[in-house]
Amino acid sequence: MFPTLSAPSPAGTEIRSAGWTQGMQRSVLRQMLAVVSRPGILSFAGGLPAPDLFPTADYSAALAHVLSTDRGALQYGPPFLPLKRHIVDLMAQRGVDCSVDQVFLTTGAQQALDILTRFLLDSAGQVMLEEIVYTGIRQVVASHQPDVLPVRTDLETGIEVDDVITHLERGALPAYLYVIPDAHNPLGVSLSEEKRARLAEIAGAYGLPIIEDDPYGFLSYDGRCLPPLRALNDSHVFYVGSFSKIMAPALRLGWLIAPEALMPKLTVIKEAGDLESSALTQRAVAAYLDGGHLPAHLERLQKEYRLRRDTMLAAMARYFPPGITWTHPRAGMFIWVTLPEHVDAAALLETAVEREKVAFIPGHAFAHPGVKATNYMRLNFSNCCLADIEEGIERLGRVLELVTA
Amino acid sequence: MFPTLSAPSPAGTEIRSAGWTQGMQRSVLRQMLAVVSRPGILSFAGGLPAPDLFPTADYSAALAHVLSTDRGALQYGPPFLPLKRHIVDLMAQRGVDCSVDQVFLTTGAQQALDILTRFLLDSAGQVMLEEIVYTGIRQVVASHQPDVLPVRTDLETGIEVDDVITHLERGALPAYLYVIPDAHNPLGVSLSEEKRARLAEIAGAYGLPIIEDDPYGFLSYDGRCLPPLRALNDSHVFYVGSFSKIMAPALRLGWLIAPEALMPKLTVIKEAGDLESSALTQRAVAAYLDGGHLPAHLERLQKEYRLRRDTMLAAMARYFPPGITWTHPRAGMFIWVTLPEHVDAAALLETAVEREKVAFIPGHAFAHPGVKATNYMRLNFSNCCLADIEEGIERLGRVLELVTA
Repeated sequence: MFPTLSAPSPAGTEIRSAGWTQGMQRSVLRQMLAVVSRPGILSFAGGLPAPDLFPTADYSAALAHVLSTDRGALQYGPPFLPLKRHIVDLMAQRGVDCSVDQVFLTTGAQQALDILTRFLLDSAGQVMLEEIVYTGIRQVVASHQPDVLPVRTDLETGIEVDDVITHLERGALPAYLYVIPDAHNPLGVSLSEEKRARLAEIAGAYGLPIIEDDPYGFLSYDGRCLPPLRALNDSHVFYVGSFSKIMAPALRLGWLIAPEALMPKLTVIKEAGDLESSALTQRAVAAYLDGGHLPAHLERLQKEYRLRRDTMLAAMARYFPPGITWTHPRAGMFIWVTLPEHVDAAALLETAVEREKVAFIPGHAFAHPGVKATNYMRLNFSNCCLADIEEGIERLGRVLELVTA
Repeated sequence: MFPTLSAPSPAGTEIRSAGWTQGMQRSVLRQMLAVVSRPGILSFAGGLPAPDLFPTADYSAALAHVLSTDRGALQYGPPFLPLKRHIVDLMAQRGVDCSVDQVFLTTGAQQALDILTRFLLDSAGQVMLEEIVYTGIRQVVASHQPDVLPVRTDLETGIEVDDVITHLERGALPAYLYVIPDAHNPLGVSLSEEKRARLAEIAGAYGLPIIEDDPYGFLSYDGRCLPPLRALNDSHVFYVGSFSKIMAPALRLGWLIAPEALMPKLTVIKEAGDLESSALTQRAVAAYLDGGHLPAHLERLQKEYRLRRDTMLAAMARYFPPGITWTHPRAGMFIWVTLPEHVDAAALLETAVEREKVAFIPGHAFAHPGVKATNYMRLNFSNCCLADIEEGIERLGRVLELVTA
């Protein structure tokens, strides 16, 4: 029968999308970033590494070398073993003992989160997330429409382990708990040593998978970061690493450390997503690491970012009125500011942009729905020069005077 | 309560993965490729473009140029508009009229399939796939555990449109129909002009989304390919394009053409998957295209691949015994061979590898479960030199003599 003979109703000709997409929204964070990225605005809103610190020349040389010498550089191919070996070495610097067979390469850390979520989370299953959490993990779980079990976070010691245990003792069977061990985005807090030990133990005792997202563990400013959870538990902790912050985001290259027995299934999920990560990028990053450039580069990053952090913290102490507190990050890129309860940070942002041309991200952009997080700001210190940090914090101080006076 | 106090059962400490992963398997195709990729085997099994034809020098120059001039090259960033403009031009060459606002950049065509599937397919919904189909689309839908509505394919004219209509008339509401308009993988067939028109009409009349996967439409050997379905229907056809076969797979860069109104939701899905595609790759491919290199490069690809196809077809006519037929692809990289009914291509592959050190992919690797496809082979002609094609087909002819005598 030819289709025109049985014309369906007009409504039937609309694109029917999957049910979960009906209520989906652009992340508040991304919407805000678009608003505050206008020229002329001094912005602490983004989460960008400093482009002037990218290893551009050395990476360009690595690309040229690989393209002129390696016939597989532009072809399809299996994960590049020499890069996995380098990652094993990087993990050792973080105190993690693993083998190349436990290294799984991904198209950035975000893809690692997505692959693990597809592997672990049933449709309408449970996940355990902090009340204030990286927006990317909320985007990842959204299509699975899970029951999100919220966990609070202490601003000095990290995630409230007792909340985790309470959920589990009540019979919760979450697909996983998501944790950032060092320099939490957006909170800037690192997990205390005691909490790392307790979480690693809980993971084994309850069979609770933990996704440990560690983009900032190599960007430490007060001595080395503590070893991540994966150093304490190799059966239930899925470690996620990334070259975005230690080299450059446009590599879109990350990795995860997972039990070897799970690799075949993770591979099938990865292939469904994008077949494989770029053979060229894998080889070029390996060539860059072969060249031994990374240690000096990391030292430079740490030195520069430490200066920016210290400059911002000192300026905040100088220019912010009383009644405001903030985290003192030992690593990473973010400071979390707690304003007096009555201050609405979203309204404050409007004033800040209009009056002083300075921007930040209101904390509610990172909040679990229903969690009150109106009186917080996230400040980024990695992507401004020292003079702009000084100037921007002074401006922000003037805006804060208006609402705290 | 501390977790060690309430020790759960040992079974509770295993990693619980999502239900759909219990039955998941590595694709038969990928398993086979590992077996037949051993050195010394003359292989027509893979699906690789020829690495000697990659535009290595020009792309290397484009990368170097971008890295030395564009400060955004290694940073996070929005989709690169100049690349979208180039894609609009490429689409015009395929007979498709679209705007930059309808172009959506992806990390390879595979990611486009994944994003569209997440957008369109409900858990346990329906999809319409050919009985013999690209394995990557079956991997994409697997996690959604859909009801797959099978459609047959004619080896001269492509997908059986009447089968599509029958399903729809019976009340099926598939999330989409998946189609390769030109040089079907694995069948090598291109859709007839009449079938393109009928499918485009059905899509509108029934509100049936069609995912049109077109990796080979620019690799045409007997004059230009016909315009794809998207040229005939801009409301329900999602066109998927790729730089993998016309430039190189390691770019991991593709695109889709979709209604502008859907872009915000597709963006959210993309961000959940890998945040964004590499800013560096987007800029380098745009720079390569700025340089005007592509037309001459495509001509060279077409000339070389045409020679390889013609060499293989001529050798098949010379060396294959009677009772065997095959498709004559006007584009792409594959020939589909129909063996006598009694021949088991999987057993034949073992004989071929052992006795003659020549390999192919048995057709059942591409078959919908339950569909009998034991007597088919897929041959790839893009990744062997002419001498190897001649030699390999002669060897394969000897193996075929054994089972058809």
